[in-house]
Amino acid sequence: MEKSGKAGKSKAKPARRSQAADDDTVITALGLKPAAPSAAVAAYFRKCQEKLGFVPNVLQAYAFDMAKLEAFVAMYNDLMLAPSGLSKLEREMIAVAVSSANRCYYCLTAHGAAVRALGEDPVLGELMVMNYRAAHLTKRERTMLDFATKLTVEPWAVEETDRATLRKAGFSARDIWDIAAVAGFFNMSNRVATATDMRPNSAYHRQAR
Amino acid sequence: MEKSGKAGKSKAKPARRSQAADDDTVITALGLKPAAPSAAVAAYFRKCQEKLGFVPNVLQAYAFDMAKLEAFVAMYNDLMLAPSGLSKLEREMIAVAVSSANRCYYCLTAHGAAVRALGEDPVLGELMVMNYRAAHLTKRERTMLDFATKLTVEPWAVEETDRATLRKAGFSARDIWDIAAVAGFFNMSNRVATATDMRPNSAYHRQAR
Amino acid sequence: MEKSGKAGKSKAKPARRSQAADDDTVITALGLKPAAPSAAVAAYFRKCQEKLGFVPNVLQAYAFDMAKLEAFVAMYNDLMLAPSGLSKLEREMIAVAVSSANRCYYCLTAHGAAVRALGEDPVLGELMVMNYRAAHLTKRERTMLDFATKLTVEPWAVEETDRATLRKAGFSARDIWDIAAVAGFFNMSNRVATATDMRPNSAYHRQAR
Amino acid sequence: MEKSGKAGKSKAKPARRSQAADDDTVITALGLKPAAPSAAVAAYFRKCQEKLGFVPNVLQAYAFDMAKLEAFVAMYNDLMLAPSGLSKLEREMIAVAVSSANRCYYCLTAHGAAVRALGEDPVLGELMVMNYRAAHLTKRERTMLDFATKLTVEPWAVEETDRATLRKAGFSARDIWDIAAVAGFFNMSNRVATATDMRPNSAYHRQAR
Amino acid sequence: MEKSGKAGKSKAKPARRSQAADDDTVITALGLKPAAPSAAVAAYFRKCQEKLGFVPNVLQAYAFDMAKLEAFVAMYNDLMLAPSGLSKLEREMIAVAVSSANRCYYCLTAHGAAVRALGEDPVLGELMVMNYRAAHLTKRERTMLDFATKLTVEPWAVEETDRATLRKAGFSARDIWDIAAVAGFFNMSNRVATATDMRPNSAYHRQAR
Amino acid sequence: MEKSGKAGKSKAKPARRSQAADDDTVITALGLKPAAPSAAVAAYFRKCQEKLGFVPNVLQAYAFDMAKLEAFVAMYNDLMLAPSGLSKLEREMIAVAVSSANRCYYCLTAHGAAVRALGEDPVLGELMVMNYRAAHLTKRERTMLDFATKLTVEPWAVEETDRATLRKAGFSARDIWDIAAVAGFFNMSNRVATATDMRPNSAYHRQAR
Repeated sequence: MEKSGKAGKSKAKPARRSQAADDDTVITALGLKPAAPSAAVAAYFRKCQEKLGFVPNVLQAYAFDMAKLEAFVAMYNDLMLAPSGLSKLEREMIAVAVSSANRCYYCLTAHGAAVRALGEDPVLGELMVMNYRAAHLTKRERTMLDFATKLTVEPWAVEETDRATLRKAGFSARDIWDIAAVAGFFNMSNRVATATDMRPNSAYHRQAR
Repeated sequence: MEKSGKAGKSKAKPARRSQAADDDTVITALGLKPAAPSAAVAAYFRKCQEKLGFVPNVLQAYAFDMAKLEAFVAMYNDLMLAPSGLSKLEREMIAVAVSSANRCYYCLTAHGAAVRALGEDPVLGELMVMNYRAAHLTKRERTMLDFATKLTVEPWAVEETDRATLRKAGFSARDIWDIAAVAGFFNMSNRVATATDMRPNSAYHRQAR
Repeated sequence: MEKSGKAGKSKAKPARRSQAADDDTVITALGLKPAAPSAAVAAYFRKCQEKLGFVPNVLQAYAFDMAKLEAFVAMYNDLMLAPSGLSKLEREMIAVAVSSANRCYYCLTAHGAAVRALGEDPVLGELMVMNYRAAHLTKRERTMLDFATKLTVEPWAVEETDRATLRKAGFSARDIWDIAAVAGFFNMSNRVATATDMRPNSAYHRQAR
Repeated sequence: MEKSGKAGKSKAKPARRSQAADDDTVITALGLKPAAPSAAVAAYFRKCQEKLGFVPNVLQAYAFDMAKLEAFVAMYNDLMLAPSGLSKLEREMIAVAVSSANRCYYCLTAHGAAVRALGEDPVLGELMVMNYRAAHLTKRERTMLDFATKLTVEPWAVEETDRATLRKAGFSARDIWDIAAVAGFFNMSNRVATATDMRPNSAYHRQAR
Repeated sequence: MEKSGKAGKSKAKPARRSQAADDDTVITALGLKPAAPSAAVAAYFRKCQEKLGFVPNVLQAYAFDMAKLEAFVAMYNDLMLAPSGLSKLEREMIAVAVSSANRCYYCLTAHGAAVRALGEDPVLGELMVMNYRAAHLTKRERTMLDFATKLTVEPWAVEETDRATLRKAGFSARDIWDIAAVAGFFNMSNRVATATDMRPNSAYHRQAR
Repeated sequence: MEKSGKAGKSKAKPARRSQAADDDTVITALGLKPAAPSAAVAAYFRKCQEKLGFVPNVLQAYAFDMAKLEAFVAMYNDLMLAPSGLSKLEREMIAVAVSSANRCYYCLTAHGAAVRALGEDPVLGELMVMNYRAAHLTKRERTMLDFATKLTVEPWAVEETDRATLRKAGFSARDIWDIAAVAGFFNMSNRVATATDMRPNSAYHRQAR
């Protein structure tokens, strides 16, 4: 049972490199060259740098093409930051539960950190990554995550009875849209990230632990 | 074997309503009220009306919120219509193969029509809807659809070996991004459409048959 | 959003061949030579030709062996055309919903056409092919298709509670047999068709649109 | 480790009824009344009684309708007993491997007995029921069962490459048809049997042990 | 329908070897050499030989290392033979239902024999192997096997509502532990057995038929 | 993109309780009372307390019955700590990859911490939890985890070809046993933990970050 004790003690062989060693420089497996940033993008990247201390790698991955990057940022910021009946934490919880179903390394890392921070509870972030069913959730949260997960795993089977369950848990028509839109968005992002082996900024791992 | 003969002959009972009877008016199950269109949106809707004869229901579904609609249109038009190493037909084939894996009624109908039209072959559209593996495809097309389908069905298992297969079939790094981005986008749209019971414009069914 | 407009316009490269180009001549991937038709088969094929304008390819596929063809026709005609508590349309709806779960190109094409014709509604046929859960169905139809689909997808889990649901929806013991028998039959046919790459007669695609 | 020793010793409570107690009288959960047998059926049932000592319950289950019974018998006897490049044992091995994938109690029991008898090896029957991959098979047998199982479990994914593997293992075009037809047939029978809770004759359990 | 008649009649080719021919000598695919038995193990093996007539192959498989063998025996005997609210038969039914879900040849054979013996009903053993849902079970037994099977097939989805169903069927907290522990144990054993191609002693096949 | 900034700022509503608030006191959902510790167990618990600062909850969960606890500890310590061709880190990597496939909160938390510590790389632990396929692994590690994962997810399909792949990557017969045994053990533990809602000690979350 001494599994986490003085682990390194007897190690003679050279330490392996950290898994995150290149994650801030080799951002995807595609090697697409960044385009010249538009004024808006340049400003936005400066703001990220100021606020977060880094530019999220997903933005750098899209930066080979300004139109694609701007479309992504517009949709992302509207979905995750604009006013909604869902709190920012709830939206991040959906993001992580969906990414867990799809096992997306990038999104689990970046948005797991967001849940830890917004929830002011590192363990809540872990639970969203590992299995949201093991978390102590409100009825509202659980219903929302069950819907997002079913929509991720067997979308063809989602229908009126599922919407009715959301309504009964207090969600409005607009809330249902937002749950679907956030779950949908991460079903997109998970796939773009995995398809390109997108690596999360190394800073995420330490955030809000 | 006379399964499609004079079917209606002996029918006494009142005909059932067409499945598409309300699809041009009851666009989703959520009943969200359209917002006042921005100038850009109003112009875009007029252009759709002129070119297609109707405004695609997905746009009307997003029209309860101009920011969401504009973000969706910007991303959609960039992905499906902007210059790319993938032809427009190839992008639509991905759209339909992904929507088939997810069994999305809206997207199969709207983009199935697009494949019929762009491919100048109604049967190609049917095959993308039913099972792309039964189609007579070029090696390039088949490799592309296999990647998009794996990314849809088991995204966690996509890795370097899958990208290598694409490269070997002649796809560039940018092409791989575009395949992933289109497959990702329809994994989003399929889920927003199914979650809201979005109905396709009835006109799609007759297009390019 | 102009996805189905003047698609062919700028095409310089030679048009690809229609997917159905060979479907009326190269019927399976096995190349089995037709046997000399029995009198009964010869008469039946003439009748098909008269009524449908063609002999369904599935019959031509079985025609390498008269005993096999006659057994297939006897079972098919009894199941789909003989008196039953299920209407012919209902039986065809089961055929297509099962074939959709199994993604069988031949059966989706041939029986999708039958649903369009018997239902006097092209869109009903599309819905059975794409996702029957998105159709506007009576309780009876939905219960019947849910049973047929569960029996197709996880047959080991079908039991008394599923039969009870059918009975509650008004189905008799004999009706339950017929639902099971039709669903079972297409689980057979789907597999024979896919295993041999059976191609549907090209005429089906245009029927009852 | 004494798991199969003097098991009954200390049992005071009344013995439970044998699982097969009613299996020779309550044949399905539907309770359909037998129709008057046609002359051909009456003769066939007498022959079964003489040769096997009983009429297989599947025949009694179909006996509510002579047309259905005769069609079933014609197809069954052609497939399983008529000349074929596949031996009778091979056809029964396919029957059981398919029924194992579908977990069909009736077919596993009746055709498991057939494999034990035809293979002159009780353990071969057990292996087909439990997991054919654990059996010591010839390359030919293994290839045949892999094809039948894939066709059962993910029919949509079967294509030319799978047929090529069969051909490489020495199977002719006609053999491929027969493998597909037998696998297809049991995918039908498994579902009819499970949907109606068809019980196997109790005699099967003791045969060829 | 004469499938189990005089099967061997026309066979000219040399009989194939029994599937179990080597199962008492070649116990796994790994060929690990037995270690010198500890005194406790030697005594235990003698007891097995006396009571069962053989040493179960699983014990011989672990016998390359006394510590591993003793740990396995201690856990096995406690779980399957020590006092519990579950009868020995119930524990063996769980063992076989779990092994059926995992299709483990070794455990289905050895513990299928145990169910036949303890249940004093060969058919009960067959049913646990083939599909426990087809057996005539008490509510208590069915609830227990449903839980064990869900825990095997989708462990991530087991939660309070599943425990509540067990409690409602009369199981105590300790009973729930025991169901979970037995189901868990065979999820381990099934995998060790399959990973090493462990063969069951040939004697099991004939026991309690 | 400011997802992890000053999250708590505008929060008026009372903070939610930490997810781990009760995890050190309410260890399972079963509420089984600890038995009087045997001398060996009492000594072992003291050793845990000294070395780790706490007694792992899994041990406290088994402590309602000394025989069960001792059997568990004996097997666990042999598997994870005794000499083996697999390093302790490799064994822990298997533990976490298996637990990730099964989505077990307890084991992912406790053994994720072990991988972080033994690997001297927090990110390696995260990757084992999230998706080992995204990690930078040696051929040996990857082959080992692929085997363990296949054995977890589709045990019935593991066979000689899979063992051959391990051998080719340099694993001995004994190593193969150890990989199977560790993977098997966590397939057991995952299920006992999930079935009882076992909670990990809160200390694990902060270890080796």
